[in-house]
Amino acid sequence: MTRTVYVNGEYLPETEAKVSIFDRGFLMGDAVYEVTSVLDGKLIDFEGHKNRLERSLKELDMTAPVTMDELLEIHRKLVELNDIDEGGVYLQISRGADDDRAFEYPDPEKVKPTLVLFTQKKNLRNSASADKGYKVISIEEMRWARRDIKTVQLLGASMAKMAAHKVGCDDAWFVEDGYVTEGSSNNAYIVKDGKIITRQLSNKLLAGITRAAVLRFAAEAQMQIEERLFTIEEAQAADEAFSTSATAFVQPIVEIDGAALGDGTPGPVAKRLREIYLEEAMKLAV
Amino acid sequence: MTRTVYVNGEYLPETEAKVSIFDRGFLMGDAVYEVTSVLDGKLIDFEGHKNRLERSLKELDMTAPVTMDELLEIHRKLVELNDIDEGGVYLQISRGADDDRAFEYPDPEKVKPTLVLFTQKKNLRNSASADKGYKVISIEEMRWARRDIKTVQLLGASMAKMAAHKVGCDDAWFVEDGYVTEGSSNNAYIVKDGKIITRQLSNKLLAGITRAAVLRFAAEAQMQIEERLFTIEEAQAADEAFSTSATAFVQPIVEIDGAALGDGTPGPVAKRLREIYLEEAMKLAV
Repeated sequence: MTRTVYVNGEYLPETEAKVSIFDRGFLMGDAVYEVTSVLDGKLIDFEGHKNRLERSLKELDMTAPVTMDELLEIHRKLVELNDIDEGGVYLQISRGADDDRAFEYPDPEKVKPTLVLFTQKKNLRNSASADKGYKVISIEEMRWARRDIKTVQLLGASMAKMAAHKVGCDDAWFVEDGYVTEGSSNNAYIVKDGKIITRQLSNKLLAGITRAAVLRFAAEAQMQIEERLFTIEEAQAADEAFSTSATAFVQPIVEIDGAALGDGTPGPVAKRLREIYLEEAMKLAV
Repeated sequence: MTRTVYVNGEYLPETEAKVSIFDRGFLMGDAVYEVTSVLDGKLIDFEGHKNRLERSLKELDMTAPVTMDELLEIHRKLVELNDIDEGGVYLQISRGADDDRAFEYPDPEKVKPTLVLFTQKKNLRNSASADKGYKVISIEEMRWARRDIKTVQLLGASMAKMAAHKVGCDDAWFVEDGYVTEGSSNNAYIVKDGKIITRQLSNKLLAGITRAAVLRFAAEAQMQIEERLFTIEEAQAADEAFSTSATAFVQPIVEIDGAALGDGTPGPVAKRLREIYLEEAMKLAV
């Protein structure tokens, strides 16, 4: 089935959805994005994604070409047109297509941002990956310094994932100056003696929307949380580990650099958090 | 005048030159590029750009969709069609457009790379910038770790250039662990007591095609060259400074973080190297 996607005000068949070769998203990686999950046809944590999008744009001196209310409408319309019960909506805003390539940002009065959205159908709630747990490898951090801005400069993340696959693993955790920053496309956590440990926010990692929600729900459930640096060695010695992201929610991790965690199956804290997240997130779905 | 550009086998008016929104160049910054200068209608150092392109592709497990001979033909045809006497040819190869977005590289048997080329008309030989000299600022390195691969992940470079413009300067030099890596889109040099000092090659900087040629020509002219790390403080105390790139050739620098170099005008070594480069590069132009 051909999806209907959105490009700059038009709803188009995906095969006709194109952008100029002069678009700065294509020429410079000068674009930001968000992925919002859909469960039961409803958008999960849209408010969080909207807020982070606004921050990413602001950090890069960009503006959205439509209002945030209009963005919500476009999301809803695409979910409806493509009959998405479970999956996600991908949104990208680039600085737009100038009439030539230049490092300098174009005049925003002259060049309007490019807005693209499309849907993806996926099983999210019942996930074989969540049941099985991921094996991760560690990899030296190689991405740019502003991981707090959700840009499309994702080649490093892509390379890390390919490196993991090459050795029969599922994902990679980046390590900088000896400490885990985050996963290739998710935030990283370990659990020791019932305490959830995850790196504190900074420019070095993305402020995950799911991270914020999971930590909030965990606190409400009286779980102990510690936001601090941790090493791969500490992670390998932890009782369990997991990652969070908008589309995988809470993903248990069962092995790190060849060392099995606990009994090598998804841990109880990760499983419990996944359940809580799914339950609580649905209450706020729009 | 509307340019004729090249996209995946077709010569098109630039207004019709488009790529799929699913192109990994647009969604992931998963693309490499080269810019080859044109002087008197001829390509400068095409061989060097071709070799570096092949290396960039190899580092990323990508392949060119056409042969290198065909690439040269496309360059020449675009120069002719667009009547380029002086300027450049921009070339980009992305990993192509899969039928959906995923971090994993698509199967290369199924997804073919996207090839885009376009020309730019510019005065290169007689350059007001070269006559006047650039003022640069230093900025903390923020780009990804594989600056040796010429990818389109250029937002950091773009931000650095904007930061320079904001304070009335022309360009920025990145500094990592206290040492200059390179300029925002060029290699960086200082001159002290007649000696040309530039950072040795590594993953931390691009192996500039113009850098290689300039160092070769300088050696042939019996100039002293030292490839080593240097700081901003050493640069500020240097007799002169300059940068090299494929389109600016040798660009004198007259001020670094507010400190004027020498008498604050382009230095004799930079001027001489620019002359030598233009003369020698023309001999090899194709």
